[in-house]
Amino acid sequence: MTTPPSAKGGPLPDPAALATRQTEARAWFEGLRDEIHALFETLEDEVGGDDAPGRFTREPWTRTGEDGEEGGGGTMGMLRGRLFEKAGVHTSTVHGTFSEAFRGQIPGAAEDPRFWASGISLIAHPLNPHVPTVHMNTRYVVTTRQWFGGGADLTPMLDRRRGQDHPDTQRFHEAFRAMYARHPVGDYARDKAWCDTYFSLPHRAGEMRGIGGVFFDYQASGDWDADFAMVKDIGRTFMDVYGAIVRGTMHEPWTQADREEQEIRRGRYVEFNLLHDRGTLFGLRTGGNTTSILSSMPPTVRWP
Amino acid sequence: MTTPPSAKGGPLPDPAALATRQTEARAWFEGLRDEIHALFETLEDEVGGDDAPGRFTREPWTRTGEDGEEGGGGTMGMLRGRLFEKAGVHTSTVHGTFSEAFRGQIPGAAEDPRFWASGISLIAHPLNPHVPTVHMNTRYVVTTRQWFGGGADLTPMLDRRRGQDHPDTQRFHEAFRAMYARHPVGDYARDKAWCDTYFSLPHRAGEMRGIGGVFFDYQASGDWDADFAMVKDIGRTFMDVYGAIVRGTMHEPWTQADREEQEIRRGRYVEFNLLHDRGTLFGLRTGGNTTSILSSMPPTVRWP
Repeated sequence: MTTPPSAKGGPLPDPAALATRQTEARAWFEGLRDEIHALFETLEDEVGGDDAPGRFTREPWTRTGEDGEEGGGGTMGMLRGRLFEKAGVHTSTVHGTFSEAFRGQIPGAAEDPRFWASGISLIAHPLNPHVPTVHMNTRYVVTTRQWFGGGADLTPMLDRRRGQDHPDTQRFHEAFRAMYARHPVGDYARDKAWCDTYFSLPHRAGEMRGIGGVFFDYQASGDWDADFAMVKDIGRTFMDVYGAIVRGTMHEPWTQADREEQEIRRGRYVEFNLLHDRGTLFGLRTGGNTTSILSSMPPTVRWP
Repeated sequence: MTTPPSAKGGPLPDPAALATRQTEARAWFEGLRDEIHALFETLEDEVGGDDAPGRFTREPWTRTGEDGEEGGGGTMGMLRGRLFEKAGVHTSTVHGTFSEAFRGQIPGAAEDPRFWASGISLIAHPLNPHVPTVHMNTRYVVTTRQWFGGGADLTPMLDRRRGQDHPDTQRFHEAFRAMYARHPVGDYARDKAWCDTYFSLPHRAGEMRGIGGVFFDYQASGDWDADFAMVKDIGRTFMDVYGAIVRGTMHEPWTQADREEQEIRRGRYVEFNLLHDRGTLFGLRTGGNTTSILSSMPPTVRWP
């Protein structure tokens, strides 16, 4: 990116309009969280089995900034179940002041280091190696600029499910392609390519984390309502397509070799999150909630 | 550290003397590697059991720098056994040119970006949760300056073994205190404190990785022979004290709960290595051997 940070995102509207946007964005993220919790619990019921179906627990946390200031917080929603070995579906709404080190990297923060951000983030680690791991997040960020960011990407764990021609891969991509076609403010080709670039492991010769999806940042087309509608549709599309992929894979029998392949693949997920993921590193370095941030770590992992 | 990089380490001797130092240092590291391989294989024999005792495999690799140049390489020595679930004891001797991004951080590299480095590195992950995980490395580095670096630190996995008053902790610290007392060029108080500072997890509220040990860098007292003698004694002391701790713990029976505690503690080890460890991050960013660098990852890990 050669665009200077101050030119990314969009200008602020008047304070009343900004407050309305913030309220609406937060309400959407929290409502989507409720819907996803309900979906995952329904899938826990549907998979059957001897163990009890998993249920989300919700744990609130408050943010303490580097200077000790209180700055909002979030709710960590965790499910440990029989279909989802570990799933975190969290929301947070935080505000504070960027430290010197970060001001130059964040659009609009060099001019005034105060920020506000609200979003939903989700990572699910299914028990069955046939069921893909998934990540989705969307957020609305306000500095002296304002923008949406987020994305969704799928990580099938077994090599034989990771091809671009696998039906689940095609289904995932097609869902987002069709969604973007409904939102002219979005650029599918750009955001699909951005996802492939972002979720790659440079230290593993560019190996991809998964099969891709979409990734975007600094979304501010000039039509906030249209941008917000696109962000909402990312969430709805995620629920539809991932729900369908889970239902299509959750009854597949697996072997111990499949499980080991899954646990080794999860190691790559850990490497990506701790070495490369901007959100993880940013959160850990800016006084984010470590427990919540690292709730994305897979439950069991192998580096043989 | 407020000392500018160009003032760290020591000046180069004449070329012939430098070449002798490089040859001697490399020979020591490789000889020590052979001795540690033999020690670990002896311990594999001593622990007994139904599985066959583990043996090291050695795999050579060659380094390719960022510019595609060939620049030395190393030998990855791995043992997967019945006492050591996974142990890596490696040596490498590499040379090349630091990229722009690193020149300002490495003593003497701003003046001329070429470097040469030789060393031994070791991480052992025992199967039995009572037997502590351990790390040791020592290296000799040459730019337009030259110095030794390294250290050794112990990570007991069970909370009840991690106190500073535990006999194994005291034994480990006492071994290095006594060793440093034989080497006036070393500063035990400084290097013990440096180890505590270095092997802590800032994102986990400063939680320590293990119980400490010694850590040093830029060692160049002005008496190279004395510095080298100290570095050799780090290796010998490691073998003596860790061998004794392993023999004292390797027959302790353990429970499934102990094993889970060990696997969770290993997660902290992963977090440290991927988020904070200078050697790991430096290696991955400078075209080091990913397989060799990440051979330090624990074999099985849990983030429940």
